[in-house]
Amino acid sequence: MSKEKPSIPKGTRDFGPAVVARRNYIFGVIRRTFEKYGYLPLETPAMEQLSVLTGKYGDEGDQLIFKILNSGDFLAKTKSEDIEQGHKHLTRKISEKALRYDLTVPFARFVVMNRNEITFPFKRYQIQPVWRADRPQKGRYREFYQCDADVVGTNSLLCEAEIVQMIDGALTDLGLTDFTIKINHRGVLAGIAEAIGEKGREGDICVAIDKLDKIGRDGVRKELLERGITEAAVGKLEPLYDLNGTNEEKLAQLQTILGATAEGERGLNDLHQVWQYLQGLQSRALMAENPSGEPRLMLDVTLARGLSYYTGCIFEVKVNNVSMGSISGGGRYDNLTGMFGLPGVSGVGFSFGVDRIYDVLEELQLFPESSQQSTTALIVQFDKASEMYALPVLQQLRDAGISAELYPEPAKLKKQMGYADQKNIPYVILIGSEEMASGKLKLRDMKQGEQQDLTVADIISKLMQ
Amino acid sequence: MSKEKPSIPKGTRDFGPAVVARRNYIFGVIRRTFEKYGYLPLETPAMEQLSVLTGKYGDEGDQLIFKILNSGDFLAKTKSEDIEQGHKHLTRKISEKALRYDLTVPFARFVVMNRNEITFPFKRYQIQPVWRADRPQKGRYREFYQCDADVVGTNSLLCEAEIVQMIDGALTDLGLTDFTIKINHRGVLAGIAEAIGEKGREGDICVAIDKLDKIGRDGVRKELLERGITEAAVGKLEPLYDLNGTNEEKLAQLQTILGATAEGERGLNDLHQVWQYLQGLQSRALMAENPSGEPRLMLDVTLARGLSYYTGCIFEVKVNNVSMGSISGGGRYDNLTGMFGLPGVSGVGFSFGVDRIYDVLEELQLFPESSQQSTTALIVQFDKASEMYALPVLQQLRDAGISAELYPEPAKLKKQMGYADQKNIPYVILIGSEEMASGKLKLRDMKQGEQQDLTVADIISKLMQ
Repeated sequence: MSKEKPSIPKGTRDFGPAVVARRNYIFGVIRRTFEKYGYLPLETPAMEQLSVLTGKYGDEGDQLIFKILNSGDFLAKTKSEDIEQGHKHLTRKISEKALRYDLTVPFARFVVMNRNEITFPFKRYQIQPVWRADRPQKGRYREFYQCDADVVGTNSLLCEAEIVQMIDGALTDLGLTDFTIKINHRGVLAGIAEAIGEKGREGDICVAIDKLDKIGRDGVRKELLERGITEAAVGKLEPLYDLNGTNEEKLAQLQTILGATAEGERGLNDLHQVWQYLQGLQSRALMAENPSGEPRLMLDVTLARGLSYYTGCIFEVKVNNVSMGSISGGGRYDNLTGMFGLPGVSGVGFSFGVDRIYDVLEELQLFPESSQQSTTALIVQFDKASEMYALPVLQQLRDAGISAELYPEPAKLKKQMGYADQKNIPYVILIGSEEMASGKLKLRDMKQGEQQDLTVADIISKLMQ
Repeated sequence: MSKEKPSIPKGTRDFGPAVVARRNYIFGVIRRTFEKYGYLPLETPAMEQLSVLTGKYGDEGDQLIFKILNSGDFLAKTKSEDIEQGHKHLTRKISEKALRYDLTVPFARFVVMNRNEITFPFKRYQIQPVWRADRPQKGRYREFYQCDADVVGTNSLLCEAEIVQMIDGALTDLGLTDFTIKINHRGVLAGIAEAIGEKGREGDICVAIDKLDKIGRDGVRKELLERGITEAAVGKLEPLYDLNGTNEEKLAQLQTILGATAEGERGLNDLHQVWQYLQGLQSRALMAENPSGEPRLMLDVTLARGLSYYTGCIFEVKVNNVSMGSISGGGRYDNLTGMFGLPGVSGVGFSFGVDRIYDVLEELQLFPESSQQSTTALIVQFDKASEMYALPVLQQLRDAGISAELYPEPAKLKKQMGYADQKNIPYVILIGSEEMASGKLKLRDMKQGEQQDLTVADIISKLMQ
């Protein structure tokens, strides 16, 4: 057995009790939101067939998939030629499974495998970890959770409106008050490409303007030119970055610019209908203004989102006045299951970035006290007599549903109080000879520093409040 | 992109919504039980350094660890000699990480890494999947969840008594009424070895009698003799299989047989003290009788549990009258963190087998209705007018915390009702022209098949009950 100092793989994390409790608080809010809108949980295995994952994330993505070595003698079927042909070739010979890279491909795989049992429209959410062999850096991990919700098997734009509602609902429940839900449509982007004389080039345009926040207008211009977009087209494109006014005004301006293009019209019609649904739902996101005076839901024609499979509305969410990238995003795709031979299943989905939400809530001090607390009461142990006296008390507390502990040894009082402190236990019960005689136990409120002498029944009713 | 029929790795499972809901019900009961006793959640990464896992589970276990191929050019540092030396040698060159095989070793690793920050006694629970490259068979998977609770840093036998309480509490909360919590002590087993003239041979004796349930008395005799235990010793051992009477009577008989051995005395003293704690806690497990008339908590000197690291009390739980192996087990270990260079940290822990508990609850039909239900209400969509009318109703339901859906398309009524049926939605709301005119909507109870005309406010108060 090794006696080296143990460590964990880089880019991975242990989550101690306090962090798990806060993460579970976030997961709980997100889960309840998904369920309130009729989304039900799905869980898929951590390991997928390598063939299911390969080719879905581009060449770069394929390199970042963690592959699992075949068990047993994985070399049994290899020859020396296989090894000479390098690691990419050998991988296919010695590895058949891999860790999931996202939740979208396993979801598509599940839908295709179970297409005959599933009732469509199928609304599922999935909250599970994914693994990527990315270079670890601040805020980027090799193991992290994704929280996805998708509905497949319907074209209804009600789903898009409900995604806006879920984002607004979950973030509001988490206590956030200043965030922007950006919305755009791939049809609008295609219409823009056509309107500026670069029909069919919306892919290149998307990749470039997706970086507007990071590399600025000049950077985007440079990239667009490199990608072969003409100077004239870039010149026509740039004024759109500054499109302003209310959402309705923006839509009207876009109608003038793109209305004549088929894709642009499709995009604008969809957006109009999403707006109509949101009005019917009396959407707070539609009506609310952020402290800056801007609408919470904002049409942003520079929103592109890199993923190539989006075909309709796209979303992205930013918390304002916090230095943090988007905490949620998604969009409609028309052919996700096509990769597994089942074409024509339209869907729309989005996800929350839990690690980023965690950091935002911590920065803004929005974690509620209830998410920080553990055991409700600790009974201090002085000696054998107090221990024996404490046992039925302990049981009564737990029977009442109160989480409680008896310190398991007659350690020094300071040590026991330190334990309560470290564990953030709000109440300590002290049972000395006087308390045993009177039947009134000392209940110490650790936060207020106050003590009261109370019967067990009174302690229970106080702690159950 | 591959168009083959996708599949999942053998021994792994997808969990659809209905199964996830039931599994979450079980996890919820177990989690609340752990927390009521002051255990707090820990989560460790799926991937551990291979060096952390290797050598902890025996040679056979090492073979069953899933290894992860190093990312990038994993062959860069290998030479042809490395490949000629076979797969075991090569594994060390091309794989540094592996999937966790259980939750115990990662816990020990966590305690050692964080020994300076942890307040002892440290009570943690952990509910996470583990992976084993075992041959898949009925009830045995390559990915499955473990639910462990351990406390380290105290010798107090109160912890053992509380484990009995937690097992009894969780299983009772799950609706089980006929189960046996078997308890024994490694000291008793060592005392028996000494008393039958085979001092120090308790390891061999444990491995053999651990199989009593599976291979019977003759099988165990054969194995004991093969392992070099004398005929005379086996002859003295066998009557102990039939030790009967109440737990107190068994303890008294054992006192006579083992009392003179140091280990036997240690074991019996510990068991006496556990009993004393349970009496103080007014333990139902101690007082309850199963339908057969046997005590729920049962001293069983043939309980051995294979794991070599146990040193004190050991536990195992069996549901009676169901063909299923043990659903929970555990024990005290004196040196778990010793494997990582931190000796002298005593601990005790146990775990629940969720897959087995799931099968038992299903067989006994003990899943409550609340664990089977999804969305509370579906609003049927007839046409654009009913859709628009439904939107604010939908929002009011959700604002009241009721999970609700509007079918996203004006599909045939039969299809929409089928959707509600498949999804196990208990209430359907129908809004036709009459309902829109009167403001009283039709609420259909899908189970009873009854319909009522109610205002939105009345529907909400009915569904919130």
